Amino acid sequence: MASYPPAFQSLVENLSRLPGVGLKSAQRLAFHLLKNDASLARNLGRDLGALHDRVCLCARCGYLAEGELCGFCRDLRRDPKVICVVEDPRDVDVIEATSEFRGGYHVLLGVISPLEGIGPGELKIRELLARMEGVEEVILALDPDVEGDATALYLTRLLRPLGAKVTRLASGLPQGSELEYADQVTVARALAARREL
Amino acid sequence: MASYPPAFQSLVENLSRLPGVGLKSAQRLAFHLLKNDASLARNLGRDLGALHDRVCLCARCGYLAEGELCGFCRDLRRDPKVICVVEDPRDVDVIEATSEFRGGYHVLLGVISPLEGIGPGELKIRELLARMEGVEEVILALDPDVEGDATALYLTRLLRPLGAKVTRLASGLPQGSELEYADQVTVARALAARREL
Repeated sequence: MASYPPAFQSLVENLSRLPGVGLKSAQRLAFHLLKNDASLARNLGRDLGALHDRVCLCARCGYLAEGELCGFCRDLRRDPKVICVVEDPRDVDVIEATSEFRGGYHVLLGVISPLEGIGPGELKIRELLARMEGVEEVILALDPDVEGDATALYLTRLLRPLGAKVTRLASGLPQGSELEYADQVTVARALAARREL
Repeated sequence: MASYPPAFQSLVENLSRLPGVGLKSAQRLAFHLLKNDASLARNLGRDLGALHDRVCLCARCGYLAEGELCGFCRDLRRDPKVICVVEDPRDVDVIEATSEFRGGYHVLLGVISPLEGIGPGELKIRELLARMEGVEEVILALDPDVEGDATALYLTRLLRPLGAKVTRLASGLPQGSELEYADQVTVARALAARREL
């Protein structure tokens, strides 16, 4: 390790600080960047240098934005009376990919997780309450796991007194799956939420 | 995908051009860089921008260098009469880690591989021949596989007439392994190269 030139060594060390990138992967990436056309390294360098200057979180909904508000909050065609609450900015894209939702979003930037020391105070819940005026429905699009359930329960208690309908994404068998391989909890939930045909 | 701000989208696309990094990994890395302290993104950006300006290949041996010659070629305490030939700059560090070698290195930057269209002309073989004067031994530290074998054979035919001893790393059972799980070729080679105790 000691034999790399300092500029290369520094790049390897910084790459190895990325999540899921160990020392060997960092070396492999650095060699790839050095062996290939200089434009990839230069473009990546430019994007990374500008990242924190140009990209921030939307002051209203917590999604990614350049400037104060994100594209969704600036889009006047979207229905402000329905808010879809998600854990992470990436979840917004999963909902958008369905083309079934035309309301606004609210990104909590996490879920309540006592094990990781994340309480309601760490999440963008105050910001959600501040924009509840005129909202008719809040869709909780949180993961169907322990943390998601706890966060959904907490938010329901806060939001219901404000007069909005609070809903959550349906839990059940995923499309294309086989009943034989489904876990007990999923089958139990699918059974409890059975629909009349 | 279309909903990210342009500066973020550009970063995700450039990250996904790295080997082994798909779109989802690129998004995860970009979010990690945005969520964390700005210094990691800035430092990585600075290193990447400077990479092709500061780091190049040593004019003599092909290892990484800042300036004309690398640290090994500038080091006068190393024995110039023994040259260790490797495929890749990373292999140099594997040899160095043993602390058993004090000669010079020569990086071929590849091995002969007709399937990938790499012939002897693509490798730094001319540069190796140019520095053979006074060299007493060339150690071929190439991988023990088809391409490594072919390259070793090619180099042996070129180098032996120049008067230098040409050797290759021993092939055999790796330390700590179990004979029961060794493959036939490895056992056959270990048997052929057996040593008297």
